Amino acid sequence: MTDARHHVVILGGGFGGLAAARELARRPVRVTLIDRRNHHVFQPLLYQVATAGLSAPDIAAPIRRIVQRHRNVDVVLAEARGIDLARRVVLLPDGEVGYDSLIVATGATHSYFGRDEWAEHAPGLKTLEDALLIRRRVLLAFERADREADEARRRQWLTFVVIGAGPTGVEMAGTLAEIARHTLRQDFHHIDPGTARVVLIEAVDRVLPPYPPDLSARAATQLERLGVELRTKTRVTGVDADGVWLGQERLAARTIVWAAGVAASSLGRTLTASVDRAGRVPVEPDLTLSGHPEVYVVGDLAAMQQDGQPVPGVAPAAMQMGRHAARNLLRTLSGAARRPFRYVDKGSLATIGRKSGVALFGRFRMWGYPAWAAWLAVHIFFLIGFRNRLVVMTDWAWSYFTHQRFARLILDLAPSSTEGPTAPGRST
Amino acid sequence: MTDARHHVVILGGGFGGLAAARELARRPVRVTLIDRRNHHVFQPLLYQVATAGLSAPDIAAPIRRIVQRHRNVDVVLAEARGIDLARRVVLLPDGEVGYDSLIVATGATHSYFGRDEWAEHAPGLKTLEDALLIRRRVLLAFERADREADEARRRQWLTFVVIGAGPTGVEMAGTLAEIARHTLRQDFHHIDPGTARVVLIEAVDRVLPPYPPDLSARAATQLERLGVELRTKTRVTGVDADGVWLGQERLAARTIVWAAGVAASSLGRTLTASVDRAGRVPVEPDLTLSGHPEVYVVGDLAAMQQDGQPVPGVAPAAMQMGRHAARNLLRTLSGAARRPFRYVDKGSLATIGRKSGVALFGRFRMWGYPAWAAWLAVHIFFLIGFRNRLVVMTDWAWSYFTHQRFARLILDLAPSSTEGPTAPGRST
Repeated sequence: MTDARHHVVILGGGFGGLAAARELARRPVRVTLIDRRNHHVFQPLLYQVATAGLSAPDIAAPIRRIVQRHRNVDVVLAEARGIDLARRVVLLPDGEVGYDSLIVATGATHSYFGRDEWAEHAPGLKTLEDALLIRRRVLLAFERADREADEARRRQWLTFVVIGAGPTGVEMAGTLAEIARHTLRQDFHHIDPGTARVVLIEAVDRVLPPYPPDLSARAATQLERLGVELRTKTRVTGVDADGVWLGQERLAARTIVWAAGVAASSLGRTLTASVDRAGRVPVEPDLTLSGHPEVYVVGDLAAMQQDGQPVPGVAPAAMQMGRHAARNLLRTLSGAARRPFRYVDKGSLATIGRKSGVALFGRFRMWGYPAWAAWLAVHIFFLIGFRNRLVVMTDWAWSYFTHQRFARLILDLAPSSTEGPTAPGRST
Repeated sequence: MTDARHHVVILGGGFGGLAAARELARRPVRVTLIDRRNHHVFQPLLYQVATAGLSAPDIAAPIRRIVQRHRNVDVVLAEARGIDLARRVVLLPDGEVGYDSLIVATGATHSYFGRDEWAEHAPGLKTLEDALLIRRRVLLAFERADREADEARRRQWLTFVVIGAGPTGVEMAGTLAEIARHTLRQDFHHIDPGTARVVLIEAVDRVLPPYPPDLSARAATQLERLGVELRTKTRVTGVDADGVWLGQERLAARTIVWAAGVAASSLGRTLTASVDRAGRVPVEPDLTLSGHPEVYVVGDLAAMQQDGQPVPGVAPAAMQMGRHAARNLLRTLSGAARRPFRYVDKGSLATIGRKSGVALFGRFRMWGYPAWAAWLAVHIFFLIGFRNRLVVMTDWAWSYFTHQRFARLILDLAPSSTEGPTAPGRST
């Protein structure tokens, strides 16, 4: 069957790609949305899955269901291997898909600044699989500590290091401290989980560097109140199975989480040779690729300056870009001129532990409990799907009042494995 | 620290082991509960995880939390490798644990009747990992069918074979038919999931062989109404990646689920050489191991006859045995005589699809909607933990009214994998 409609291919079902698909729904175009996962992940809540507060399905939804009612949107589960700009095709493992217009929204993953050998010991937090791996390591660490007779090795199992004090790092460290002090307090007979050390390491001089200094200071106070050890102006120079090196100093730890660097999807390099240091693709003000007005790049993969600042790699920016790219595409089809993109900062929020946080809305600032409540309201509101909102709200209310975290499963992912807890690695 | 109290080791945190631990809580004994998982799984609902209706944490709870308040119960995450009856020690990968009394409750896994090569193509359903693997295969099958241009290969992706029509097989087949006809109906543009074939194969002449023939007949009618193809008196003679052999007949299928055979935990063979064909350990009427009054065997691992019938391998029997073994142990300690075990059958229930089922309580029989409602009430009631009951109820209400299943995630379990959907295997 041939279809005369203009064919738009969208690569990536994250915030940017979905926003574009929604904008193109019921318009006179044919859309193919390609993602290597069958589900959209609500990334801002990944740390809750990593810390056993939410289950994986709570923060994810099948892409097919999200676009179910959009009859002109087709979903393909496949991983794009490359893009041939000259022939206007996307290369898939089992063939290729031609396009008239292309929207690339494949996002970013974590970057180890060229030290990829650290990845094994210090997993990052970008996918559900990452979150489940970290959850498994955190829970196993307490189990191992409980059975360890040697004091130094027990301390090592009870030391948790989070590298990078951006929003994800701050949220991870705060929640880990909560788990140790409250959730697991009663569960072990040979150790006191409350004596666990949670160390948060940041290269610059304060936590939450994108926020104004006074909010950073408030966040630092709240973290310290939770028992998190802050190490600002500290550079990690080595990571291995037994801990991290901070210059000459050795920090013995078994559980390390990487929240420091971000690198754009490698697909960017198949679009242009002039990616920036983080692998992002420079885009025109209208979000198209230079010399290719039929190709749009949106979200974390796009490098864009606005008022001398880079547009931040956050969900609202990705959604705004996806929507804008789709509108520019429709304008082009109807013969109108494309408009330049402008990011509207609606504010930022970070949570710290169970009931505090910091928030910035323009010049308006909040901290402590009100910021946490605002964070909760915003995140529940934007979670995709009515059911997810309801269940996440129930889960959080339950965690809040009982200090329990229900998703404390250590799953072993080899299908018919008989391996015991001595072999870490695979996880769910 | 030495502890003069009588030391009871319980192997296995399933229904039998937990019932024993609870009975021994706050008694003058020291208890060590050893399991290779950190969580107890509510096995009767595994098929709901396999069919994306519930998430893994919904039907599982951390063993530590379940016994949290029992100060005399210690939990160890480790896999028992063997039992040395003469020295009274349990062998672990990193050492051994001595006992004064031992309760072995390590349960059963699936058995391929000596054809272990079938396991790869036809996974069984005993653990959360199994359930997540089957979920992944089922969801991927529809995705692959949607992209398959060849008609025969598409039919193969859309054919689901369930081997064994006991309660698990009936529940799996009914739910698979539901998913194809309702849940996924709108989600694909190139296939109609409603045309999927679900074939249920059983060697004897009726489904649900443990039930009376009239209830089997009712179950068969309900299954056929859902669109399940029943093949009774049919033996599977081969299983491979492309389908199953039924004698000379070939059934091409990509997704095969094994619900046919059960084999007791291999630990039974380290207790006695005289295990039965399914690997179960014959026990004395008081549940002790012959010649070893300090060792009890309970649950699916125990082989016991009652009134000429074997005690069935179901959760209520395991719980009754665990409780009885603990009481006999306490009787022995206080100098009283051990009592023989007697299984009390409180009834059995099986569900078929979204709103029918069969139930048997003594002579009282139910079918259709009332049986389904009874099944729901009983299963929610027995689910461990208040939160789980609440969330499962919400999930079921949501599925029931919307026909949706929220846990439709295809996760790829290699921690930092870039593999596309073309490589099945690992899953969550």
